[in-house]
Amino acid sequence: MKPAAKFFKDILKGDKSAVARAITIVENDSDYTLLKKLFPFSGRAYYIGITGPPGAGKSTLVNAIAKLFLKRKKRIGIIAVDPTSPFSGGALLGDRVRMADLALNKNVFIRSMASRGSLGGLAKKTKDAALVLDAAGMDYILIETIGVGQVELDIAQVCDTTLVVLVPESGDSIQAMKAGLLEIGDIIVVNKGDREGCERLIMELKFAFDLRNQLPGWSYPIVKTIATEGYGIEQVVSRIEAHQAYLNKTGKFEVLRKEHLFSRINELIEEKIKNKLRRRLKSQPELKKIIDDIYSRRRNPFDVAENLLKDSGIVP
Amino acid sequence: MKPAAKFFKDILKGDKSAVARAITIVENDSDYTLLKKLFPFSGRAYYIGITGPPGAGKSTLVNAIAKLFLKRKKRIGIIAVDPTSPFSGGALLGDRVRMADLALNKNVFIRSMASRGSLGGLAKKTKDAALVLDAAGMDYILIETIGVGQVELDIAQVCDTTLVVLVPESGDSIQAMKAGLLEIGDIIVVNKGDREGCERLIMELKFAFDLRNQLPGWSYPIVKTIATEGYGIEQVVSRIEAHQAYLNKTGKFEVLRKEHLFSRINELIEEKIKNKLRRRLKSQPELKKIIDDIYSRRRNPFDVAENLLKDSGIVP
Repeated sequence: MKPAAKFFKDILKGDKSAVARAITIVENDSDYTLLKKLFPFSGRAYYIGITGPPGAGKSTLVNAIAKLFLKRKKRIGIIAVDPTSPFSGGALLGDRVRMADLALNKNVFIRSMASRGSLGGLAKKTKDAALVLDAAGMDYILIETIGVGQVELDIAQVCDTTLVVLVPESGDSIQAMKAGLLEIGDIIVVNKGDREGCERLIMELKFAFDLRNQLPGWSYPIVKTIATEGYGIEQVVSRIEAHQAYLNKTGKFEVLRKEHLFSRINELIEEKIKNKLRRRLKSQPELKKIIDDIYSRRRNPFDVAENLLKDSGIVP
Repeated sequence: MKPAAKFFKDILKGDKSAVARAITIVENDSDYTLLKKLFPFSGRAYYIGITGPPGAGKSTLVNAIAKLFLKRKKRIGIIAVDPTSPFSGGALLGDRVRMADLALNKNVFIRSMASRGSLGGLAKKTKDAALVLDAAGMDYILIETIGVGQVELDIAQVCDTTLVVLVPESGDSIQAMKAGLLEIGDIIVVNKGDREGCERLIMELKFAFDLRNQLPGWSYPIVKTIATEGYGIEQVVSRIEAHQAYLNKTGKFEVLRKEHLFSRINELIEEKIKNKLRRRLKSQPELKKIIDDIYSRRRNPFDVAENLLKDSGIVP
């Protein structure tokens, strides 16, 4: 077998080093050569998003969920997306250490997506990596993100079920509501359930959900966990499965996946246009003069943008 | 005078209620009618960005800086951009109360830009609001943001001088470096300078800056403050003025502003294209069939995006 064919076969088999290499390749390939080849083999994994504030115990929860899936002979891909804010990373090292025993399991693949100073494209990179894991035969892909920044909202677009993890700490429930975090959650997990204020938080959340429009056939469950002790994890997983069953039964699964695909096409086109646009603008012979005119307030950027768009024939 | 003419004059005079109304109008006007009229009167304010982790004391610092500018008979606009993450808002109420006495001053205009569940366009809204404040005759516009999410990076694009605020807490300096926060800072403020670890943090930062390429004529200052007590604020302001003088002397100010204008044009065009693109894609007669094909893995989104772009004549 040729090396390329063997590499491709190894990815599909879920061989760890091949998968790792594949992710690195797709991260740097703007032509999508490998992804195009892998795409036909994707679509079988179930995507689970886990989001919530720093310190909510998301990594421990992901860890516990993954272990439970492992017991059921499932294969699991985990993508931990580094925080948009660099300041919540204090616990990361500990989390990674905790995940180390998982990482040794041949049925688990863990990838950390770091922003490393450039945040642009983090969501895109995550989606590409998830697609590789999907084609590599993972049954579940767990994507862990912090907060509800644009990156997280973009990532939520590939998830079938999204868990929002909160802890009994002052104000979080209200902040979460304000920020629309509850709107993206299919299941709410109240972790560190042995802490003071837990019952109060659950009550507040129930109240918030009563105000929200309920979907026929799905009432948003609130599950109490103590992830460090494994308490409540079975219930979280059974709620995930219930949500999956609900999506399938109502036909929403297909609708959701098709919406995700529509968004993906849109993003891909936008990305291409953006690149072309910037190059084209920069090569505008008039550009220097135009900017000078705006700088000295003889023209304004709003009219200029409109005119440039009209003149250039981009999007008639 | 006609009401519209009076309204416009009131904005330019910096009348508080007119300015507030104007910001609300531009937030909801996709035609930029008012901004087009205001733009010729903008360009005189100096834009200062203040960014850093939750709890670094940014609001207190902004408060103290604003008070110092006030003493010098300057007019100040403050835009507080709500965090990308909803979970750092614990102190917000306290901050706002602290700002209340400032808000009563006729030479200070404060606006809070909340994301309220929809983060899209937060950076754009902030820029539009800043433009109104600029035309309204503010001498300084202080823009307070948290972290270095995409929103913050976008906002940094309108600032002339950016302050990065850190506190002596474990790991922050390293996290900040990793995330590229230091790269956007012209001045580093180490706040809560009476806390343990302060000197160590300053040492680490100095070391980091020694590794960074220095600009001729500007060595990145690190200023120690205790914002709650007003300690170090004079020095922060004198460093801001030094940076402004440096930009002017070297001609970098004009270059920077022109770069910002270029980015702005680009964004405006991108925004228009995005909207048109989404509408156009949705009205594609073939779209349903295409998505079905991708869903069933007969086609892949990467080729589809390329072909749609080619066929549609968007960006030839």
